[in-house]
Amino acid sequence: MSSVNQVYIAVIGAGGVGRHFLSQLSVLSHKVPNISLVLISRSTKSLRASHRTTPLSLETWEKDLEASTSPALTVDQTLKFLQELPDKRVLIDNTSSQDVADAYPAFLNHGISIVTPNKKAFSSTLDLWHSIHESSYRPYDPYLGRGLLYHESSVGAGLPIISTLKDLIDTGDTVRRIEGVFSGTMSFLFNNFAPVDGKGGKWSAEVRKAKEAGFTEPDPRDDLNGVDVARKLVILARLVGLQVQSTESFPVQSLIPVELEGAESGEVFMERLGEFDKQMDEVKNEAVLEGKVVRFVGSVDVGRRALKVGLEKLDKAHPIAGLEGSDNIVSFYTESAGGAVTAMGVTADLIKVIQRVS
Amino acid sequence: MSSVNQVYIAVIGAGGVGRHFLSQLSVLSHKVPNISLVLISRSTKSLRASHRTTPLSLETWEKDLEASTSPALTVDQTLKFLQELPDKRVLIDNTSSQDVADAYPAFLNHGISIVTPNKKAFSSTLDLWHSIHESSYRPYDPYLGRGLLYHESSVGAGLPIISTLKDLIDTGDTVRRIEGVFSGTMSFLFNNFAPVDGKGGKWSAEVRKAKEAGFTEPDPRDDLNGVDVARKLVILARLVGLQVQSTESFPVQSLIPVELEGAESGEVFMERLGEFDKQMDEVKNEAVLEGKVVRFVGSVDVGRRALKVGLEKLDKAHPIAGLEGSDNIVSFYTESAGGAVTAMGVTADLIKVIQRVS
Repeated sequence: MSSVNQVYIAVIGAGGVGRHFLSQLSVLSHKVPNISLVLISRSTKSLRASHRTTPLSLETWEKDLEASTSPALTVDQTLKFLQELPDKRVLIDNTSSQDVADAYPAFLNHGISIVTPNKKAFSSTLDLWHSIHESSYRPYDPYLGRGLLYHESSVGAGLPIISTLKDLIDTGDTVRRIEGVFSGTMSFLFNNFAPVDGKGGKWSAEVRKAKEAGFTEPDPRDDLNGVDVARKLVILARLVGLQVQSTESFPVQSLIPVELEGAESGEVFMERLGEFDKQMDEVKNEAVLEGKVVRFVGSVDVGRRALKVGLEKLDKAHPIAGLEGSDNIVSFYTESAGGAVTAMGVTADLIKVIQRVS
Repeated sequence: MSSVNQVYIAVIGAGGVGRHFLSQLSVLSHKVPNISLVLISRSTKSLRASHRTTPLSLETWEKDLEASTSPALTVDQTLKFLQELPDKRVLIDNTSSQDVADAYPAFLNHGISIVTPNKKAFSSTLDLWHSIHESSYRPYDPYLGRGLLYHESSVGAGLPIISTLKDLIDTGDTVRRIEGVFSGTMSFLFNNFAPVDGKGGKWSAEVRKAKEAGFTEPDPRDDLNGVDVARKLVILARLVGLQVQSTESFPVQSLIPVELEGAESGEVFMERLGEFDKQMDEVKNEAVLEGKVVRFVGSVDVGRRALKVGLEKLDKAHPIAGLEGSDNIVSFYTESAGGAVTAMGVTADLIKVIQRVS
């Protein structure tokens, strides 16, 4: 496995997303033969390939990890392990760990590429953001290689939001406004609670239904506090150049009734949520009286440097109102039109070619 | 300009899209210093850089091309010119020429990358499609380099449709159905002719308005015949693996009244279009009676290998019904959900890293 074109892959986190990723990597490895899985580390255990000899098995990794007696690697140990491998190393961080995120600059500075859905790396302090991006934009170093950084899934959930925004910026378009529904959970809740046809159930019943369908975190307050949407918005705003300090620098509406913020568990919260259905009904009915629907929206007004997360009343014909299921949507309002837009597609493609041949 | 990292760029077509592209390339060249523009060729004139010495000026190209006495290069001459340059050459084909498209395999086989919005390359014969893709998927050759192929703008018009579809396929998702409004012109016409609120003008008046606003081809029949949408659909269907022979292998509804197909000019067509408003009103009213709106939709049912382009009646809450202006929309209906979707974003990112470091 020491071929010059070998790409060495280390995976931290082997839970929900991590497990799906490893199964997709197994499919990919049949088409891309130069992939070598060299490390899997989760909270309690780890599995390492012997350097430059045999990669880990993508077929039996789950059993092999279970049988491993090695404890989880610290972030430093992971970095050291990857440093000892030749060029072309990728860290896949499938955790939501702040510790791992804090070490991204160190990985990138050693020429190790990073692919991750971890929002914390890009939505916590502005200092970390700058440090990560300065490290990933270093020029190619023939000894260290170059650390590339991709984090589409930190915002996208299947939609190519970050890559589209980067293409707009790289090709010289001006983004005026970003607006969308950035949470599958919030989408599911409001599409059912306040559908365009005016029906829909009680708020607490819809939250319960979403929880039972697996659309919420174990404690639904982790969705309803709006922080997940706020983090995604911080990432997009920073990408367009706004120096947003944190998720606390702008208004984020929480849908947790004040009285239930301190409820001792998710179960207690769910039991008592029905007491507050009247508040949400008022919000819904107010929108209905105006011929509108209520949705949980995140927006960035770039010119005014204003971010906002919370309930909005929208026309029924608004693209957001027509969402279904747990779908996300995002709109970029930009300056270009017509032939310039087609040309931007061409220029964005050219940038990808240059990145691959340079 | 003979640095090892220099990327040599030849541009064919310097009209609408070509001119916008060159202006974006000028902006890009300030950020990416290793770009050398070496050729601009349009229908009557061309401008070539002296090999390996001074690239063309991105500031004065328009005046320089005007002053040039060199005739347009043939496709063979263009290929020969690029062959004589070192590795890392990109042909930007901003034409809609079948001749240029037919030569893509030759360019790619010589390690020249291609970036283009030219639909004809990918929607004419299935043989050409296979020939182009076999040439672009050749392994890297240290002498010739490798010809990469990007053609987002052949379908997208600003939306990342092809790259998203490729990511879905590359990460192992199964695409069941593709559906959308693939024409800015058709979008503009129907959003105004049959808006969700039930109003809207006469069909011929809306076509005239679209023409005057620059949203149609000089002869609007070139939009109304549905062929542009059909071509885009062929490209997407072939990308998911369907062996579609041509745009004539499936039903494509033309909105040109049979009586006006032979009208001698676009002007005559426009003058007489009003005689057929009643037909379009009937279509609109039939939809209204069912509480729906009519739109011009393209769809691919992957399982049934069925493509279709034409008028459809849609619920007012359907994402397509809520479009505004000349916006396009496309929906991919796939198999994956939840954690697998997030993991696919990670896997797609990893593929991009591997492509760049390999």
